This record gives sequence, C-alpha cells and structure tokens, in this order.
Amino acid sequence: MHSRSGSTPEDEFRTVELERVTIVAESVLESRLIALVRELGARGWTLTEVRGEGSRGVRASEWEGKVKIETLVPKAVADRLLASLARDYFPHYAVVAYADRVRVVRGEKYS
Amino acid sequence: MHSRSGSTPEDEFRTVELERVTIVAESVLESRLIALVRELGARGWTLTEVRGEGSRGVRASEWEGKVKIETLVPKAVADRLLASLARDYFPHYAVVAYADRVRVVRGEKYS
Amino acid sequence: MHSRSGSTPEDEFRTVELERVTIVAESVLESRLIALVRELGARGWTLTEVRGEGSRGVRASEWEGKVKIETLVPKAVADRLLASLARDYFPHYAVVAYADRVRVVRGEKYS
Repeated sequence: MHSRSGSTPEDEFRTVELERVTIVAESVLESRLIALVRELGARGWTLTEVRGEGSRGVRASEWEGKVKIETLVPKAVADRLLASLARDYFPHYAVVAYADRVRVVRGEKYS
Repeated sequence: MHSRSGSTPEDEFRTVELERVTIVAESVLESRLIALVRELGARGWTLTEVRGEGSRGVRASEWEGKVKIETLVPKAVADRLLASLARDYFPHYAVVAYADRVRVVRGEKYS
Repeated sequence: MHSRSGSTPEDEFRTVELERVTIVAESVLESRLIALVRELGARGWTLTEVRGEGSRGVRASEWEGKVKIETLVPKAVADRLLASLARDYFPHYAVVAYADRVRVVRGEKYS
C-alpha cells in the first residue's frame, strides 16, 4: 500500500495509490457537486474555473462558465461517485466524469 | 470496451478507456488549436487559463498568458492530434503536448 | 525510450514517458515551490489558480487562494521533488502532491 523511495532518511517518503476523479460541469452545479463529493467520502477537492464544449447531455452547444472538480479518493469511493453522477446527473446535465490512478504522497487520510 | 461496476442497479455505470490529450500553448493559439482538435475528431474539450514556463520551442523564456486544452479521445484520434502538433506547431511555437489514459463514464460518443 | 506512431512520414512523432508531478498549495507558497521545482531539475512548469479544501496539514478548514503546479520530469526528478515536499513542506503547510505517468511528445529535453 505504500513504497519507500531513496536510501537515505532525507529522501524517504511514502506514497499511496488513489483514484483521481475529475468532474467537468456547468458552474451552477458547483455547490451541489462539492456536497456530493464530500458526502460520498472524499476529504478534499480542487476546483478550477474552465471553459469548454462537449456533446454530452441535454445541451450540445458550446457552454461557458464551467468548473472542473478533482478529488483524490480510494477506488471504492471513486466508483460510488461515478455511479452517482451517472445515475443522478447524466440524464439532466452536461456533466463529464472520469478517473485515473495517481501516486499520492502520504500525509493525511484520504477516506 | 465497457465495464460494469457494482451489483445493484443504482450502482451500475459503464466506462470506456480513452486518451486524455493535454496541450499547453500560448493563448494566441487558442482558436487555432480548438479548431484542430475538433477537425481531427474530438467532440469536446476543456480550456483552462494558466501560467507557465518551459524550454520547448522558439521561446525559452518565461511566458505568461497560456492556455491548457484537454480533450478525451480514442487512441487513434490522440495519435493523429499529437502527430499534427509535432509536425505543424512544434517547429514554430512553444507548445507542450502529452497524453495519458483515463476511465470515462459513458453517456456520449467520444468520436 | 521513444516510439513511432503511424507509417507515413507526416504521421511520425516521438514520445517519451515522463512523470507529471502535481502540487496543490496555498498561493503564498507559489514562488518558493516554483524555485524548488526548478532547482531539483525541472525545465518547465504550468501553474493554475484553483480553489480547494483538504484535510492535509496544519489547516484543515476550507482555504481559498490556492495554486496547482504541474511539471513533467523524469522519474528520478519526480522522486526527489516528492521527497523534498514530504520532508520540508508537509510538516508546515497544507500541501498535496502526487504523480502520474504521461506520454509526452518529444521536442525538448525534460531534464
């Protein structure tokens, strides 16, 4: 679950493999999505204001005023989050959601 | 090409593996790069205003006013896009381009 | 170390596998973190202004005014950078740091 890198004490650090879930959505959904992320078990998130265009969902035209929310979570939390988005948001909103795996320096609990 | 996660209906969602291509370039190239991304087959993109410094290309000094463009595409589209950037942009502009693999919740066609 | 994609000359490009190190921290640390990234061997970086909340470090409450710094570096540089952050920043600041692997179009030296 963790690895040590380097052979001298000053080079030591531990990492943990987590899923980074990325959600891109209209800004109007910001507070609801952050509440969802926390409710499903994430302990932190990063939000970036972006612009974008996509073919997903009810609005196919260009949309300004979007947010990208990223959160680092264990696989089980990632799957719950993606399932919740697919079920409750995809039918109604132009949300894009994806996950990839990252190696996180430990120092906190991520769930 | 897709997987199901969870065993109860409310947890079900399908994912597809796609390449996320990331392009970082001077803001002046924004509209040309978005046109290129669409022309080569991407159905969506996200743009973030960033700052940065890099050693690539004709200008090695610090440059403000950059954009980061991300697009989720099949591998073949990613390769065409990276090849086009390497051929037409790298000789003339301080563009950085890279790709990684992500697990995207289905709900639209990505090409 | 590199691959060729496509069979016609105009489709050829070479890629190199690098680590993308992502650091999220309070904006006040921006110049120190950029200096650290460069000092440890990175030749470029991208900075995005973000918002966020996290449980790591000395401040657990919500914090506005953060930056996300991304840099593409060889594995050895990534490990030195993560170790330095874990040792010198994690005890004092609410910094999050992680790495993942990306396929970068060549065109410069990354270290």
